[in-house]
Amino acid sequence: MSKGLTSREEDYSQWYNELVGKADMAEHSAVRGCMVIKPYGYAIWENMQAALDKMFKETGHSNAYFPLFIPKSFFSKEASHVEGFATECAVITHYRLKNDGHGQIIVDSEAKLEEELIVRPTSETIIWNTYKGWIQSYRDLPILVNQWANVVRWEMRTRLFLRTAEFLWQEGHTAHATSKEAVEETERMLDVYADFVENWMAVPVIKGKKTENERFAGAIDTYCIEALMQDGKALQAGTSHFLGQNFAKAFDVKFTTKEGKLNYVWATSWGVSTRLIGALIMAHSDDSGLILPPKLAPIQVVIVPIYRSDEELEKISELAKSISTELKLKGISVKFDDRDTLRPGFKFAEYEMKGVPVRLAIGSRDLEDGTIEIARRDNKEKQTISREGIADYVENLLKEIQVNIFSKALKFRDENTREANSYEEFKELLDTKAGFISAHWDGTAETEKRIKDETKATIRCIPLNNKPEFGNCILTGKPSSQRVLFARAY
Amino acid sequence: MSKGLTSREEDYSQWYNELVGKADMAEHSAVRGCMVIKPYGYAIWENMQAALDKMFKETGHSNAYFPLFIPKSFFSKEASHVEGFATECAVITHYRLKNDGHGQIIVDSEAKLEEELIVRPTSETIIWNTYKGWIQSYRDLPILVNQWANVVRWEMRTRLFLRTAEFLWQEGHTAHATSKEAVEETERMLDVYADFVENWMAVPVIKGKKTENERFAGAIDTYCIEALMQDGKALQAGTSHFLGQNFAKAFDVKFTTKEGKLNYVWATSWGVSTRLIGALIMAHSDDSGLILPPKLAPIQVVIVPIYRSDEELEKISELAKSISTELKLKGISVKFDDRDTLRPGFKFAEYEMKGVPVRLAIGSRDLEDGTIEIARRDNKEKQTISREGIADYVENLLKEIQVNIFSKALKFRDENTREANSYEEFKELLDTKAGFISAHWDGTAETEKRIKDETKATIRCIPLNNKPEFGNCILTGKPSSQRVLFARAY
Repeated sequence: MSKGLTSREEDYSQWYNELVGKADMAEHSAVRGCMVIKPYGYAIWENMQAALDKMFKETGHSNAYFPLFIPKSFFSKEASHVEGFATECAVITHYRLKNDGHGQIIVDSEAKLEEELIVRPTSETIIWNTYKGWIQSYRDLPILVNQWANVVRWEMRTRLFLRTAEFLWQEGHTAHATSKEAVEETERMLDVYADFVENWMAVPVIKGKKTENERFAGAIDTYCIEALMQDGKALQAGTSHFLGQNFAKAFDVKFTTKEGKLNYVWATSWGVSTRLIGALIMAHSDDSGLILPPKLAPIQVVIVPIYRSDEELEKISELAKSISTELKLKGISVKFDDRDTLRPGFKFAEYEMKGVPVRLAIGSRDLEDGTIEIARRDNKEKQTISREGIADYVENLLKEIQVNIFSKALKFRDENTREANSYEEFKELLDTKAGFISAHWDGTAETEKRIKDETKATIRCIPLNNKPEFGNCILTGKPSSQRVLFARAY
Repeated sequence: MSKGLTSREEDYSQWYNELVGKADMAEHSAVRGCMVIKPYGYAIWENMQAALDKMFKETGHSNAYFPLFIPKSFFSKEASHVEGFATECAVITHYRLKNDGHGQIIVDSEAKLEEELIVRPTSETIIWNTYKGWIQSYRDLPILVNQWANVVRWEMRTRLFLRTAEFLWQEGHTAHATSKEAVEETERMLDVYADFVENWMAVPVIKGKKTENERFAGAIDTYCIEALMQDGKALQAGTSHFLGQNFAKAFDVKFTTKEGKLNYVWATSWGVSTRLIGALIMAHSDDSGLILPPKLAPIQVVIVPIYRSDEELEKISELAKSISTELKLKGISVKFDDRDTLRPGFKFAEYEMKGVPVRLAIGSRDLEDGTIEIARRDNKEKQTISREGIADYVENLLKEIQVNIFSKALKFRDENTREANSYEEFKELLDTKAGFISAHWDGTAETEKRIKDETKATIRCIPLNNKPEFGNCILTGKPSSQRVLFARAY
C-alpha cells in the first residue's frame, strides 16, 4: 500500500487499472482475457447478487440452470443472433486428451465431436429449445426464469470487469402469451435495474431504448440504462430486451390460447453482469482509492486501534468489541483490525484504498475522554464524537454517505450533460468536455454510423419519456422530432 | 400428475428417473450429458448453497472466482492429476465461427488457438498458478478460498444429478504454512460436510479415508463421507483432500517461513456438488414422490382450500392468509394454492410428489369448527387440529419431521450395515441384501481391484476412528488390522 495511485487527471485508464489491483478486486489470469475475481471484489459481487436476486424474486421470478454448451446448429437458428455472436465464441471440438507416447499430452483426434459445441455467450437459443418442452397451453405461461451464470465472448481487447472473455452475469428469460405482457416485463425489469443501480450502487442512470444499430442480436427492442463515468464516458449498465416472437419462431414454440388458437410465444431477456463492478469503481472512486456505497460495501465500518503498549491495546480492544457488537446488532458489517504488523497510518491508507465507508480510530486518549475519531471515506471528513450513541450515529452516517455519493454522481452527470445544436459544436464538446450530449438525429442508421466513424461517439439511447422537440439532425440537417443521447462509451 | 410412479421395488432406477421428472426437478438437455435444473430443483440447490456458504464463512473462508478455462499445459503439470482427468474433458480449439459462403455456419479454421484450453473439470491447476502470485511470505498464509462454479467432466453414462457432464459445485482451495494446518483444514471441512449432510439433508454419513485406488488425482489423502441409498447402494456425498505439496511443487509456489527459510506451500481442496440433490432424493423419497427435509424444502407448508362456492373460497382464503402471515413471521415458507383449475385431490398428489413436508387443508366445515386438517408428508399421518396456536404446532412439527426423516434413514443404514467374514459370505450379502459390508482387507490395491472386478463392490472408505480388530482378508486370507467398508456404489 506504500505507493499511491496515478491520479485520474494524469491518466484515467491507468488509475483504473492500478485501483482494481491495489484494492484487491481482480487480476488478469494466465488465460487470455479471463480474470480472477479476488475475495474482496467477489464480496461486492455477492452483495450485488443478493440485492438483485431479492428484487427478481419479488417480481415473481425463479432461478434455474441451463447448459454451459450450445450446439452449433442451435446457435445458427436465429439469423441475426448468430451474426452478432459468431465472431467471438469459444468452440469445443474434442472431448479427450491423450498421451502422445513421448510424454506429451495432446488432443485425441479420435475424440472429435460430431457437432461442435459453443460455450454460451448468452442462452436464448438453448433456453428456447428447452421452453419448447415446457409450453403447450396458455396455462403454462408466463414462464419467469432467471439464471446466474458465467458466459464467454472472445473479446480481443479486455479490461478487468469492463470487458473480459469470461464474465459472470444473470440472464432472465421469460415467455408470455401476449406482446403486451412481454413489453411490460421488459420495462419492469429495466425499472428493477434502474432501481438497483441508483439505490444500491448510487449511480444515476438514464433509461432509454437503443437504436437499431445497437440492439441485441435477435431483439425487436433493446431497453437500456446508461450511466456516466468520471472521465465523461458513458457505460451501459444493464439491458432488457423485447424479443418479440423471434426465438419462439426459430425454435417453433407455440401455445394454445384460451380461445383454442395456436400462437407463437412472446419473449424477453434481460441481464446485468460483473461489468457493474467496473461501473461502481469508475463512478465514485478518487485518487486515494475506492469509494463504495455503504449498501454494497463488504466492510462498512473498520475500527483501527492506536496504541503504544499491549495494555493499551487490550483496553482499546475491549471497547472496540463492544462497539462492534452494537453495530452488528444493527446489521452493520464491522472489522476490527488489530494486526500488530502494520502502523495505523498504513491501515488508514489500506481502507481508503478499499473504500470502507466509515473508519473509527480509538486511542488511549479517547478511552479517557469517552470519545472516538470517526472518518468518512466519501468526503474524508473527520470528527471526534462521543462513544455514547455511536451505533445510531454510524447507522445514520452510512445512510447519509449513500445519499451523498448518489447526489455527487448526479450533480456530475447533470453538469456533464449538454446540448449540441450543430455538428461543429457536437465535436467540440466531445473533445473538450466529454459527457452526454443531447442532440438531434435524423433517425437513420447511416447517419449514426457516420457520426460514430468520425467521432467515436455513439447514440447511447433514445431516452424514455423523451419530450418531443422539433429540430434538425446535427449531421444531415434533416428534420428530427426529438433529441437523443450521444457519448463516447465503454 | 395423473400417473403414479413406478415403485421402488419394481425398478428403483426407473423410479428415480420418473421422480426427478415428475417432481419438476431436472431434465436432460439437448446437449449430450448436460442437464437443465428446473426451478423447483434449483430452489433446493439454492437452499443447500445458502446453508453451506454460511458454514464456510463461519470457518473463515471467502468466495472468489477463477477462470472457466485451463491451458492444456497447466493441466499437465501434475502427473497423476492429468492422468485422472484427461480422458473426460471438453477441449476448446477455436475461437470463431464463420459463414462458409453457402449459408452454413462453420468453425473458422484460421481462428485456431495456439494452445488448447480445457473446460475446468476441477480448478487446482489454474488456482495454484494464481496463488503463486499471492504468496511470498508466511504472512500471506493461510489462504482460505472457496469458489461456487460449474465444472465439466465428459461422462459417457449420465444420470440426472448423479452423474452429468456439466454439474454445479463448490470447490474450496486452501494454502497453508504447515502440513499439520493443512491436515486440520482437510478434517475441518469434512466435518462441515458431515454436519451439513446429517443436519440439513437428514442423511447419516460415515466419515472415512479413501484407499489409494479411490483417491483424488493429485491428493496425498482423500477424506470422504459415504451415505447409503434405499436400494442398498452407497453414494459418496463429499470429499476433502489433503494435497500435500504436490500442486505447490507443480506450480513452484514457495513462501518464506518465520525463520527466513524457503518452503513449498501445503494445500487442501474440498467439494460437494449438485450430486447431493440426487442423494437427497434417493435417501428419503417413497413411491408417492419426494420426501424433503423441512430445512431444505423450497415450500415447507402448502395450504389447500376445499370449497364449493366462490363465497366459501373467499372465507377460506381469509383464514389461509392469516395463517400464512403467522407462519411467515416464524420464517416458515408457505404457499397458498388457490388455483381453480385443479381439484384438491390433484393438488394433494402434486405436493406429495414434490415432497412438501406439511399440508394444511381447510374446508368450510373447518371454518365453523375452528379446526384445520394437517398432513405430514414423511409418514402421511393426518389429523385435525385447532386453529389456535397452529403456527407453534407447525413449527414444532417441521422440527419433528426433520428428526424423523434422519432417524428413519439412520435405522435403515444400521440395518443394512453387516459384517462379512469370508468371501462367500461377502458375495452372498452383496447379492441378497446389498448395503454396507464391513470386512477385512489385506491393504493392497491388487486385492481391492480383484474384488471390484469380481463383484462390482468397492471400498467406500476406511472409517475414521475405526476400532482396531485383527483378522484375515476376505479374499487373500492375509492378516488385516481393521475392517473397511465395502459397497456397490453410485
